[in-house]
Amino acid sequence: MSYASLHAVRRARLAAAFPEHGVAAMLVTCPVNVRYLTGLSSSNAAVLVGTGGLAVLATDSRYAETARRQCPDVEVVVGRDVAWVLINRADAAAAGIAVEADHMTVARFRWLGGQLVQRLGRDPLTPVSGLVEAVRAVKDEQEIDALRRACSITDEAFSQVVERITPGVTEREIARWLEVRMVELGADKPAFDSIVAAGPNGSIPHHSPSDRPIRSGDLVTMDFGARYGGYHADMTRTVAVGRPADWQRDLYELVRRAQHAGCLAVRPGATAHQVDAAAREVIVAAGHGEHFEHGLGHGVGLEIHEQPFLGPDRTGRLEDRVPITVEPGVYLPGRGGVRIEDTLVTRDDGPELLTLTTKELLIL
Amino acid sequence: MSYASLHAVRRARLAAAFPEHGVAAMLVTCPVNVRYLTGLSSSNAAVLVGTGGLAVLATDSRYAETARRQCPDVEVVVGRDVAWVLINRADAAAAGIAVEADHMTVARFRWLGGQLVQRLGRDPLTPVSGLVEAVRAVKDEQEIDALRRACSITDEAFSQVVERITPGVTEREIARWLEVRMVELGADKPAFDSIVAAGPNGSIPHHSPSDRPIRSGDLVTMDFGARYGGYHADMTRTVAVGRPADWQRDLYELVRRAQHAGCLAVRPGATAHQVDAAAREVIVAAGHGEHFEHGLGHGVGLEIHEQPFLGPDRTGRLEDRVPITVEPGVYLPGRGGVRIEDTLVTRDDGPELLTLTTKELLIL
Repeated sequence: MSYASLHAVRRARLAAAFPEHGVAAMLVTCPVNVRYLTGLSSSNAAVLVGTGGLAVLATDSRYAETARRQCPDVEVVVGRDVAWVLINRADAAAAGIAVEADHMTVARFRWLGGQLVQRLGRDPLTPVSGLVEAVRAVKDEQEIDALRRACSITDEAFSQVVERITPGVTEREIARWLEVRMVELGADKPAFDSIVAAGPNGSIPHHSPSDRPIRSGDLVTMDFGARYGGYHADMTRTVAVGRPADWQRDLYELVRRAQHAGCLAVRPGATAHQVDAAAREVIVAAGHGEHFEHGLGHGVGLEIHEQPFLGPDRTGRLEDRVPITVEPGVYLPGRGGVRIEDTLVTRDDGPELLTLTTKELLIL
Repeated sequence: MSYASLHAVRRARLAAAFPEHGVAAMLVTCPVNVRYLTGLSSSNAAVLVGTGGLAVLATDSRYAETARRQCPDVEVVVGRDVAWVLINRADAAAAGIAVEADHMTVARFRWLGGQLVQRLGRDPLTPVSGLVEAVRAVKDEQEIDALRRACSITDEAFSQVVERITPGVTEREIARWLEVRMVELGADKPAFDSIVAAGPNGSIPHHSPSDRPIRSGDLVTMDFGARYGGYHADMTRTVAVGRPADWQRDLYELVRRAQHAGCLAVRPGATAHQVDAAAREVIVAAGHGEHFEHGLGHGVGLEIHEQPFLGPDRTGRLEDRVPITVEPGVYLPGRGGVRIEDTLVTRDDGPELLTLTTKELLIL
């Protein structure tokens, strides 16, 4: 399958959802969705997808040459206000035009609607939620290949950096080492701002790396990942520096068991809250329910957090070929915490694990 | 001035604009604006700013401990739907609540409005544009210090990498070297995806670095920068690999003169289109007007592109202490291009140049 037709297939999958929303076309303005549907990565582009997935791509002069080279299967038009350029192309459409309700701002929606009322005497824009995101949740194998490579870079960076963790190095140094190694190993860039949380800082799930030096007796949680070909890996490991205390070993073992249970529950057909519950029940049974306040995981792909989300009040079922994280944690205020996270892909014959770093407690 | 009171001063500047918009409070949901007004960097936080700058900060459990530590001068409330948590706090307000029209999505605005109508029988939300952004455009000296350091890291990375540029190395390698060096020199991370465009690729203003090897006779344009303390540096230099042809020297000299003219025009009181015109007229006079299609520059700060913007159809006047880029370019399709860019700060006694790398044509 050629690169171009890959995007055409994605657009056709999107267009298949138009009738149930009563629209004939969709104006896609979210940059990552534009990239997904056309291949163009740009800070100022939009695509108008019509019936069957036929598309017109608009971008400004900075990206015009790239768009023409990279997106041979779509018509490219050049202008600065890309949404307005495309809306004008769709004016003749009798039916509605979907816009991305979860991306388009109030200001843009009002302005475009006002212009259309002036011109057509009516406003054909219909805000819809999650249409492209639902198509994106199920990945094609080309996407999974990119994600597999992103996870492999993540694993390799971890193995090279972990041996440098000793008392005296700072959280910030470890984060920098991880990020530099990932880029040297071929990552586009880090998938997100790395978290390195040592000792008591481990009780803060999204701690920003500080200049606090690692001390013997610390647990150190590292949550990081590589972006490769636009796809985001996400992995967390918690290690012990020096001989861990009994409570640290017990906490680690608890989270490890919960994470394992969560991974086993990842399969096509499982509901988002079932997978969450599989891990959460282990933690609740150990009396730490109130120390695990976040959801169990999230989809990854062209965004670091995308559909589907796993949590107690999340709905929907997993499908086949959905990359997702499983990342339970237990956080004890003032003492520290443990989180363990993998990126997996749902498969009919059992989940494919993409992050391959050991989950045994490493003692450094 | 303490760190905490710095944010209180910013909030008070924001609140001073409420009366002209007929609101008593503002719900700020854009993450970078929340960071600016409170100091908290979080992917899920919002702040409700009331009269005089009094503030309530909402975030979820992952960031709660950080928020309480870092933001001692605001009340912190914890919840997952941070906007909804805060809107409920403001229910009793008789007057309107401003929301960020250029950030809040159609879906959120409709949902919050619907909930409020159910509860209050009216919808007090008033979409406003650019309120926090206008306050942010004028920086305090602490912000300029962070930006100066970001630019200094950018300069140093360039000087260390430029000597490694020889025929055979690829655009992608140069981009990686720049990004790795910036992080090693103390950057939070690269300020944006670096552009390295060699030879004919130089005609694409926002070219993504490819595996194309540098050849003798290429002009190589590098557009990159460091982020430090959240603040974004932005610099572009074009160098020659091997002896440049006459047309390359002429093109470089033209852009250098235009860039110099633009920098000289940067001063408090100048209009956005005057500064643009100062540089553009040089390029137009040389017959290359149609080869410089983008605006002359943009503000930098907590975002890489922020208010104000410089361009032929941009309005508004520069104030004192506004960091801004000046980045004219000439792009010749199929042949190549030149862009030269500095980050400067408007000062009453003449602009302060933050990126200090030479603008003489370097021949490698």
